[in-house]
Amino acid sequence: MYRLHGLAQSGNTFKVAFALRVLQQPCELVFVDFMNAATRSPQWRAELNPMGEIPVLDDGPRRLTQSGAILTLLARRHGALGGRDDDEQFEVLRWLLFDNHKFTSYFATWRYMKSFAPTPPDPAVRAFLMPRIENCFGIVEQHLSGREFLVGDALTIADLSLSGYLFFPTEESGIDLPARYPAIARWVQRLREVPGWQDPYDMLPGERIAPKW
Amino acid sequence: MYRLHGLAQSGNTFKVAFALRVLQQPCELVFVDFMNAATRSPQWRAELNPMGEIPVLDDGPRRLTQSGAILTLLARRHGALGGRDDDEQFEVLRWLLFDNHKFTSYFATWRYMKSFAPTPPDPAVRAFLMPRIENCFGIVEQHLSGREFLVGDALTIADLSLSGYLFFPTEESGIDLPARYPAIARWVQRLREVPGWQDPYDMLPGERIAPKW
Repeated sequence: MYRLHGLAQSGNTFKVAFALRVLQQPCELVFVDFMNAATRSPQWRAELNPMGEIPVLDDGPRRLTQSGAILTLLARRHGALGGRDDDEQFEVLRWLLFDNHKFTSYFATWRYMKSFAPTPPDPAVRAFLMPRIENCFGIVEQHLSGREFLVGDALTIADLSLSGYLFFPTEESGIDLPARYPAIARWVQRLREVPGWQDPYDMLPGERIAPKW
Repeated sequence: MYRLHGLAQSGNTFKVAFALRVLQQPCELVFVDFMNAATRSPQWRAELNPMGEIPVLDDGPRRLTQSGAILTLLARRHGALGGRDDDEQFEVLRWLLFDNHKFTSYFATWRYMKSFAPTPPDPAVRAFLMPRIENCFGIVEQHLSGREFLVGDALTIADLSLSGYLFFPTEESGIDLPARYPAIARWVQRLREVPGWQDPYDMLPGERIAPKW
């Protein structure tokens, strides 16, 4: 059985947990106290992940990290969600990289600063991040206008990756998806209806934290 | 023959150009006037890449984007640089994602702001980026201490990806690799000795630009 280390506030943990449910793979969840810097301790890094990141997926004796790499491995191993031919597989990887480089990266960083960081976000950093978020959300909004899923016409790990942080309450990021990105909001709603979906705060370990700033 | 759209200041273009030379694949280079916002024009986005990014690799009628996805496709197609078994291929993908998420992402953004942006970098944004750069450079420094390449004991696209922005002059980023990250600097020197390597300002189209700030 898989064992997944992470917490409810981590959309990157949710990406993997949701994929495992869609693939009907049972999984034990292990809480990581990320908000209290568990992943920064030398011991955690030595035992779990030198990159200091969650999620970590125990796959027998191996410890797998990087949600995009884990999703790719799971899709290949279980023969689903990876795209139906070489061209679709290329597109899936392209979106996974875009997600890691920009889409999740900027959005999740902003949400962390707005909701969970010990000090309020600096206005200059907000001004740095916000146009970058708007640029990549605009690209995805345009891509999803008139299509149901990011690649081809079926659910793939690209959808699970890019949506990972979009199931959290609006107040955590302050970005109102239905008002500003209606095609993204419709796609998120479509993903909520996929068998196996559950709210991250119900699916994953860890208590809710009220947004701070 | 492949055709690669990009410019000399783009380490992401360099990653692909260097890989093609290592794989001994001839390639036509097409200059993109990124510094004058060519990639932001609706026409460029419609014809070349809706994500608004370089490089773009013409592969017959297909236009491929995202350096990490292109590198993965090239390694698979030409049967080299991709890792020698499933475990190494997983590790390669893990480093490609770490690179896109953090290592190249923070470093290249900082270098752009310091050297090429129209206004000087805001001190608060510098304070946001610098600890993130230091964190991921520290992780790679530790990983490379005592090993020659990132994955296994041979050159892979993971090396080509993470090193893409490290062949530019120190003054463009202000980060002195040999002084601060000796294992990274030794690895960069090792990569300079790989047959096919050439300085980005000699390999790729576009004139040098003196660092601005």
